[in-house]
Amino acid sequence: MPLRSDWSTELCPIRRSLDVLGDGWVLLIVRDVLQGYGRFDQLRDSLGISEAVLSRRLRAMVEAGLLTRVDYVSGGRTRQGYAATEAAAELLPILQQLAVWGERHTATPEAGGHMALIHDRCGQETTQGQVCSACGEVLVVEEMTWDKTWRGRQAKLVPAGVLGDPDPDPA
Amino acid sequence: MPLRSDWSTELCPIRRSLDVLGDGWVLLIVRDVLQGYGRFDQLRDSLGISEAVLSRRLRAMVEAGLLTRVDYVSGGRTRQGYAATEAAAELLPILQQLAVWGERHTATPEAGGHMALIHDRCGQETTQGQVCSACGEVLVVEEMTWDKTWRGRQAKLVPAGVLGDPDPDPA
Repeated sequence: MPLRSDWSTELCPIRRSLDVLGDGWVLLIVRDVLQGYGRFDQLRDSLGISEAVLSRRLRAMVEAGLLTRVDYVSGGRTRQGYAATEAAAELLPILQQLAVWGERHTATPEAGGHMALIHDRCGQETTQGQVCSACGEVLVVEEMTWDKTWRGRQAKLVPAGVLGDPDPDPA
Repeated sequence: MPLRSDWSTELCPIRRSLDVLGDGWVLLIVRDVLQGYGRFDQLRDSLGISEAVLSRRLRAMVEAGLLTRVDYVSGGRTRQGYAATEAAAELLPILQQLAVWGERHTATPEAGGHMALIHDRCGQETTQGQVCSACGEVLVVEEMTWDKTWRGRQAKLVPAGVLGDPDPDPA
């Protein structure tokens, strides 16, 4: 995903990760796909991204092993959606920690609310992204619900390989 | 740090975080500053970044509350270096998890080695970025050493506000 110099052969693994993830769109697309919003028009509407840029990012993310294509039927036609790979699902702690950090260190907009990370296994909210601050278990996609209080709805995360139910609500 | 549309007023805290951090350079600069490489020429040499781009990033990161300027004396002159703020130090779990993810999901270059995250408090290596996989304690900058085995040297991380000792070795 060459948006600047190629970091894919760097010795530091942080830098190699950022070669794949360094563009903010990539992590936002993973965010949406984990919430089950893996259809092209859902992603376009949620992200406010041009179709051309979105197409390029999706293709690059499939090549990078972050997304897999999943067929679905809509209006009698078979279409392609996108599901997270295991590698993308393992970005969960990073995404959740970005949510925690963002609430602590960026200004909440007036209309804003709180993004609660609910650990389904224990039923509690965790204030840590990787290990549940309530019960101490490691957090995995299959056991998380994101409660975006400003939307008044909760998104139960979908596992790797799953497209999730169609849902008109953007992420 | 407007590298694309402004995400600073987005309702989703993940997206607001990425407004500040979405450019790969920002997290790499935090990586280096936490290792004590906060002098301009250290950062330039470590990152392989142009002086103009580095200057712009550093200025933006001071404005965003990620870095503070710290005076130091070199060659009889007072110069300015950069130290992490508390907000930047709280990126530790994200940086460490990027290291773990990068080793799992990107190709290690032939000359590469392992980046061991050593938890000084218990003396063990942790395979998690946020909570020590060996002793269960939450990981903080003051208690971490990064052992980049391909360099044959360890970097004890420096706390927020600290510039670290001068060191000719790039990060």
